[in-house]
Amino acid sequence: MALPRDYSGQNCSAARALEVIGERWTLLIVRDAFYGVRRFSDFLAHLDIPRAVLTDRLNALVEAEVLERVPGANSRGHDEYIITEKGIALWPIVRSLAGWGDRYYASNGSLRTFSHADCGGRVDAASRCARCDKAVPPADTIINPGPGLKHQKPRTDPVSAILAKPRRLLEPMHLG
Amino acid sequence: MALPRDYSGQNCSAARALEVIGERWTLLIVRDAFYGVRRFSDFLAHLDIPRAVLTDRLNALVEAEVLERVPGANSRGHDEYIITEKGIALWPIVRSLAGWGDRYYASNGSLRTFSHADCGGRVDAASRCARCDKAVPPADTIINPGPGLKHQKPRTDPVSAILAKPRRLLEPMHLG
Repeated sequence: MALPRDYSGQNCSAARALEVIGERWTLLIVRDAFYGVRRFSDFLAHLDIPRAVLTDRLNALVEAEVLERVPGANSRGHDEYIITEKGIALWPIVRSLAGWGDRYYASNGSLRTFSHADCGGRVDAASRCARCDKAVPPADTIINPGPGLKHQKPRTDPVSAILAKPRRLLEPMHLG
Repeated sequence: MALPRDYSGQNCSAARALEVIGERWTLLIVRDAFYGVRRFSDFLAHLDIPRAVLTDRLNALVEAEVLERVPGANSRGHDEYIITEKGIALWPIVRSLAGWGDRYYASNGSLRTFSHADCGGRVDAASRCARCDKAVPPADTIINPGPGLKHQKPRTDPVSAILAKPRRLLEPMHLG
């Protein structure tokens, strides 16, 4: 069902935020951008999303200045989608969503855990380090394979393969 | 476009959370439940949502144990929808969404601000009190009309009228 674009009367900030990111695939694309995914083909393989839907959502995220489209650095010249400062400000939402999912739906343990690059402490769902008690921005956050991963059917796409080892959020993935 | 219910391969906790709450109206219903809205007619008037969509989303939230449906206390016996502990655990997501919207879309200032019931300090987008530095749960959070409200077209529905004064989150609204 088509929803009105502007939620007549729903002008609170949560409603306005949901106009931009209130669609399930959209937040998974943003999540992948935090993982360092930048290329259309890599989003496509990792998200297992219909091509037309991915095109539409990427365009909307560029329009909303959450992602920036730039000519690719490699010789084939594919465009890359790079998360902007406005997009990086979505991290608490992505992190707290994953935290809620971990709490209620990860019966085999989290697939991913987060740690603080500076001190190695665990980063909680509020993006705070359990060891040094600092608020940890995504650029200082390490994403690690979690205990639930071994209970999953293994995935063979290149993004999943790279995420099998700890890595820093926002570090660009150079694939293929 | 219909999305698959289970995001084949998207088993990370953020994806699982989005299966439950990844729809724009759903999070606005949850937001209203934090405001204390409990009755179908009050959600309907405040959200300005088609009746069939509201019915569908409330049923899904009850199914997911985010809301509990209970017989109403008043004489007319309308059902009430009460947020569960699992639903209350969504607060960091709702709060951080509103914080992002405030930062990028509230050119006239926030419509709502949040303060700490215990000390009166401002509660930030990470649900932390700027005065006493405590993590503030929703039950200790006061929602206040913000500076942006006077730039809005005034709304006359009963929920908006009650939110024109400071009130504690989760306190049931007794309307009509």
